[in-house]
Amino acid sequence: MTDTVVDSRRAALGLRYGATEAENPVTSDNPVQSENPAWNEVLATQLAHRSVRKFLPDTLSDDQLRAIVAAASSAASSSNLQLWSVVAVTDRDRLGRIASLAGDQDAVRNAPLLLVWVADLARAGRIAEQRDRDLVNAGFVESALLGVVDATLAAQNAALAAESLGLGTVYIGAIRNHPTRLAEELNLPAHSFAVVGLVVGHPDPAESAEVKPRLGVDVVLHREQYDLAAQEAGIAEYEARISAFYREQGLPDSWTDRVVGRFATRGALGVREGLREALERRGFDLN
Amino acid sequence: MTDTVVDSRRAALGLRYGATEAENPVTSDNPVQSENPAWNEVLATQLAHRSVRKFLPDTLSDDQLRAIVAAASSAASSSNLQLWSVVAVTDRDRLGRIASLAGDQDAVRNAPLLLVWVADLARAGRIAEQRDRDLVNAGFVESALLGVVDATLAAQNAALAAESLGLGTVYIGAIRNHPTRLAEELNLPAHSFAVVGLVVGHPDPAESAEVKPRLGVDVVLHREQYDLAAQEAGIAEYEARISAFYREQGLPDSWTDRVVGRFATRGALGVREGLREALERRGFDLN
Repeated sequence: MTDTVVDSRRAALGLRYGATEAENPVTSDNPVQSENPAWNEVLATQLAHRSVRKFLPDTLSDDQLRAIVAAASSAASSSNLQLWSVVAVTDRDRLGRIASLAGDQDAVRNAPLLLVWVADLARAGRIAEQRDRDLVNAGFVESALLGVVDATLAAQNAALAAESLGLGTVYIGAIRNHPTRLAEELNLPAHSFAVVGLVVGHPDPAESAEVKPRLGVDVVLHREQYDLAAQEAGIAEYEARISAFYREQGLPDSWTDRVVGRFATRGALGVREGLREALERRGFDLN
Repeated sequence: MTDTVVDSRRAALGLRYGATEAENPVTSDNPVQSENPAWNEVLATQLAHRSVRKFLPDTLSDDQLRAIVAAASSAASSSNLQLWSVVAVTDRDRLGRIASLAGDQDAVRNAPLLLVWVADLARAGRIAEQRDRDLVNAGFVESALLGVVDATLAAQNAALAAESLGLGTVYIGAIRNHPTRLAEELNLPAHSFAVVGLVVGHPDPAESAEVKPRLGVDVVLHREQYDLAAQEAGIAEYEARISAFYREQGLPDSWTDRVVGRFATRGALGVREGLREALERRGFDLN
């Protein structure tokens, strides 16, 4: 491994974990192997991920869009059922209406391209209907989950593909805020729903989106069995490590406050408390 | 773009779509751009994905595992909540027990490494508990979905990272067959559950796992609005295209039969019909 590769890997890991070399949770106890090092262009692209929310007005080429979708299609799919679709939105009026349904985010309103990732059992429903069969299993939790996992695997391949082409991305969870009205806007049929949105475009160089530090490897990685207590030191360490990043962004600086605020505070999910009812209306009973 | 790059892209797309150049659903109506082509090492790695089910006994290095987890950690996470964990299993006895819970697949029983991707609100629960707070929002569908999407984004980055290092992977959806017993085996706490497994190892060169052709871009990609009827020609074309692949693998050759069999046939989900009840027991009421 050349010095350049060592430096590139060290720098990428340092940004991802927001740590100095000595503190680096990946390499501190595990010196980089000098032979057959685990580093390459794919890892470098993945580690460099950041959410981009401001874009130049430039549109993507059709060649780029099709390459991104080919990447999405190349992700694994349970039993090759391919229970997903993607709706590519570029119409400015439609983007404005979707933005108003999805948390009024400028990243959506001004998106060069919004990809809406759909858990799609509607295609299966159509095939069944043509044989006079009913989609009798659509109501099980497992069926919805198959669609969600397929759509999410596809979305992540697409996001990375876009980033590898020099584009920026940001996921839009708020696409789930108003599932019924969004489905009307996108003409989504029964047995389909939007899992997540992904804005894609050429990053505005005037915006300095940063790589966000994450929980250390030893917090998220468990050996043989899950261990809750063993994470505590790593969580405390992360709380200290992320605070500078959040302060720089003008955000409240406690990660644990953020977690508690979301899940231990009544009402914190807002309109998304209604997701179950909306999914039932879309043919997913979650039985 | 050099001829080599053009050829490499054309070959990869040809395998992914199982089509001749003329039929290629990506490039037929869309000649490859000669300037700024949408092709690189990341796309090449993504397009080359195949499921590998037979492995050499060689284990991964800790350096490789940590790089794979760093890639997983680099995937986007809703509001940076990082609602996932991964359990790395290499113990042969445990792998044997997990295999018996997950469809008795040799790929699990003989896995050099099994990564179990966990939707993890247990970490949030612990943080809340330390402040004498309850995880009052864990019961909403949205909360489970946040964990599922985070875990799946992480898993896909991990799968691609492994493949970029020359390793092979196969996802194991059957990890959801017996969630309660699996949780006992992995010591998963309340408010966590296994979404999907991923076997990782050095591919056995004696196995010739192939790139699986997918639905054409024009079936899964919708412009501005979803269109069900417009997919029909593409589905028929795929039905013809995939049949040779399935026959070579000794599998029933109809993709639409597979879809109908799964969702329009009572009982086809088998034990996974019980997923809702199992999730409730794990603290996810799906309200």
